[in-house]
Amino acid sequence: MENAVTLRCGDGGKYTNSLIKDVFYRHFGNELLTNSMDAAVFDLNKERLAFTTDSFVVKPLFFPGGDIGKLAVCGTINDLSVSGAKPLYLSCSVIIEEGFDIKTLTKIAESIGDACKKTGVKIITGDTKVVEKGSVDGIFINTSGIGVVLEEYNSKPIIDGDCIIITGGIAEHGTTIAVERYNINIEGKIQSDCMPLNNIIEKLQKNLKYIKIMKDPTRGGVATALNEIAEKSNMGVILNEESIPIEKEIKSVNEMLGLDPLYLACEGRMIIVAEKQKSKDLLEEIKCITGCENSTIIGNFTCDIKSKVLMETVIGGKRIIGPLEENLLPRIC
Amino acid sequence: MENAVTLRCGDGGKYTNSLIKDVFYRHFGNELLTNSMDAAVFDLNKERLAFTTDSFVVKPLFFPGGDIGKLAVCGTINDLSVSGAKPLYLSCSVIIEEGFDIKTLTKIAESIGDACKKTGVKIITGDTKVVEKGSVDGIFINTSGIGVVLEEYNSKPIIDGDCIIITGGIAEHGTTIAVERYNINIEGKIQSDCMPLNNIIEKLQKNLKYIKIMKDPTRGGVATALNEIAEKSNMGVILNEESIPIEKEIKSVNEMLGLDPLYLACEGRMIIVAEKQKSKDLLEEIKCITGCENSTIIGNFTCDIKSKVLMETVIGGKRIIGPLEENLLPRIC
Repeated sequence: MENAVTLRCGDGGKYTNSLIKDVFYRHFGNELLTNSMDAAVFDLNKERLAFTTDSFVVKPLFFPGGDIGKLAVCGTINDLSVSGAKPLYLSCSVIIEEGFDIKTLTKIAESIGDACKKTGVKIITGDTKVVEKGSVDGIFINTSGIGVVLEEYNSKPIIDGDCIIITGGIAEHGTTIAVERYNINIEGKIQSDCMPLNNIIEKLQKNLKYIKIMKDPTRGGVATALNEIAEKSNMGVILNEESIPIEKEIKSVNEMLGLDPLYLACEGRMIIVAEKQKSKDLLEEIKCITGCENSTIIGNFTCDIKSKVLMETVIGGKRIIGPLEENLLPRIC
Repeated sequence: MENAVTLRCGDGGKYTNSLIKDVFYRHFGNELLTNSMDAAVFDLNKERLAFTTDSFVVKPLFFPGGDIGKLAVCGTINDLSVSGAKPLYLSCSVIIEEGFDIKTLTKIAESIGDACKKTGVKIITGDTKVVEKGSVDGIFINTSGIGVVLEEYNSKPIIDGDCIIITGGIAEHGTTIAVERYNINIEGKIQSDCMPLNNIIEKLQKNLKYIKIMKDPTRGGVATALNEIAEKSNMGVILNEESIPIEKEIKSVNEMLGLDPLYLACEGRMIIVAEKQKSKDLLEEIKCITGCENSTIIGNFTCDIKSKVLMETVIGGKRIIGPLEENLLPRIC
C-alpha cells in the first residue's frame, strides 16, 4: 500500500476497495460490515432493517438535473432501495465553511426538503458543524438512512443465463459533472439522472423474488458495479454493447473528452440481475415506472468465464471490461 | 439572519439553533425532527428505536485522552445513551484529504475499532471519500447510530425540586483542546474526558423511570445544556457553584485563558435530571460506575424562575448563566 491517501482511493474502484479492506475492515470489520453491499441488512428482534451512510462532496454544488442536496437524499434512498428496503428515515449532517452564503445554503436545504417530500422519506435527526474558511470546500453533506427490508431478494445465487437490466441511459450524472467542471460548451441537453429509486422497489415488491441483485452504478459506473457482482458471484458477465442505453449527447461528449461512459457514474439508475425466465416480464413492468422508460436488458451472466465482464462490441469484437483503474473525475458525488 | 455562515453558527449555542431553525427545520422539519434532542426516537412496528448523527471535525486529530476516531464512536454512542437507548450499530463515513498519511489513518481506524470493541457496538456500514489537497482539513468523520430504547424516561415533566446530577468533572475535553490548539505548556494532567456512556444507561436501566432527562453537555458545555433543558421545560435551574466538580488543573488553565469552564465541552459526562426523592440513591449507584466516581448533585429545578439558569456563587452571589453567546473555540468535536 502507498504511504499517503491518493484521489483514486476515493473513486470507487480497486484502490478504494483496497483502502477500505486494508485500513478499515482490518480494524473494525465484522460480518455485517464485510457482507454489506450498498447497505447493511440486519435483524432487530422481528424487524429486518437496512442501514447505510454516504458523504457527499460533489463539485460543483449545483448542476443540471440536481444539486448536492437532492443528491444527498437520493443517494442514500437508492442505497437502501437496491438493498430491497423501503427507505423510511434519514439523518442529515452538514459541514459548512465559514463565510458560506446563507442563500445558497437555503437553496440546498429547500432541495433536500423537496426530495424528502417527493419520496415520503423523513429527515429525523441532524448535525451542523461550521469550520474555518479554507478547512472545507464550501459544504459537505452526510446522509445516513434506515429502511425496512421488503424482501430478501439476493439470497438465491446467480446462475448461468440470469439477465442484466439497466433502468435507463448510462453515464448521465458523471458526464454532467465533467461538462460543468471543465466548463465545456455543449449543444443539446446534458443533465444528471439524479433521482430516487424507491418507487422501483415499491412497485416491483411482489416480483422481488425473481431478482437476484440490485445495484446502483454510482462511482465507477456500470463497469465497476458489474465487476463487483461478477467477482462476488464468481460468474462472468457478457455485455452487449449495442443494447446499452446511452443518450446521443452523452455519447458524443464522452468521445470528445476521451472518457469511457461505462465507468461514469449514474445517480438514478439501477442494475437489476433477474431470473432469465422472468426477465422480459420484469422489464415490461419496470418500463412502466416513471423515469425507467428506457430500461433495457444489456447482457447476461455466464459460467463460461469467471469473475470477469466481457463486452461484445458493436463492430463484433470482444473486450474485457475491468474494474475502474484510474480516477477519471474526483468528487462526482 | 446574517448573509453568511459564521463560525459561531457551529458552536452549539444560540446562533447554531437559529441556523438550524431558520434554514433546515423550515425546509425539512417534521415532528420527529423538531422534537428530537440528541437522537430521534421513533416506533418501527413494535420496536422503539433511536437514531442519531454527528460529524466530527476536531482539531487537532489526536489529543490527550483521545483522538477523532474515539470521539466519533463515543459521541454517537453518547447521543443514543442519553436518549435512553442501548446503542447497537453505527455507520462510519470518512472524508479524507488527498495526501493524508496512511499511518495516521490507520491509527484512527484502530482507535475506532478499539472503542467499538470496548462498547460492543458494531460499525456495519461505511463510506470513504477522498477530496483534493486543500478541500478538507485532513480528515472529517461522520458516525450515525441506531439503538433500541430501553425506557421512555423523559415522558414525565420536570417539576420543582428535581435534582441535577453531573457524572464527573466538567470542561475537561474543551480545555484539553484549547491547551493543544494554543500549544500551551501546562504542568499537571490535562486530559479529555472522552468516553462512552452506554454503560451508565445499561447499569441504571431499572432506575430509568426516576430520570426525567439525560443530556451530554458537549458543544456549549454544561451551561448551554442546562439552558436548553430549562427552556424546553419552562422551568428554572438553580446551580450551586461550589458543588460543580472541576479538576484543579482544568480550573487554573481556564482562569489563565479567560475561558468559562461552564461553557466548555465535556465528551464523557452526562447531566441527569432525577426525581428529588430518588436522587441520592441514584447518585450512589452512578458513583459505582467506572468513570463516574466523581458524580455530584450540582443543583435543582425550580418553578420560581422560568427558562433560566441561575448560579449561586461560591462568594454568595447569584449570577444568570445564559446560553452560549460567543464562539469560544471552534472544532472541539
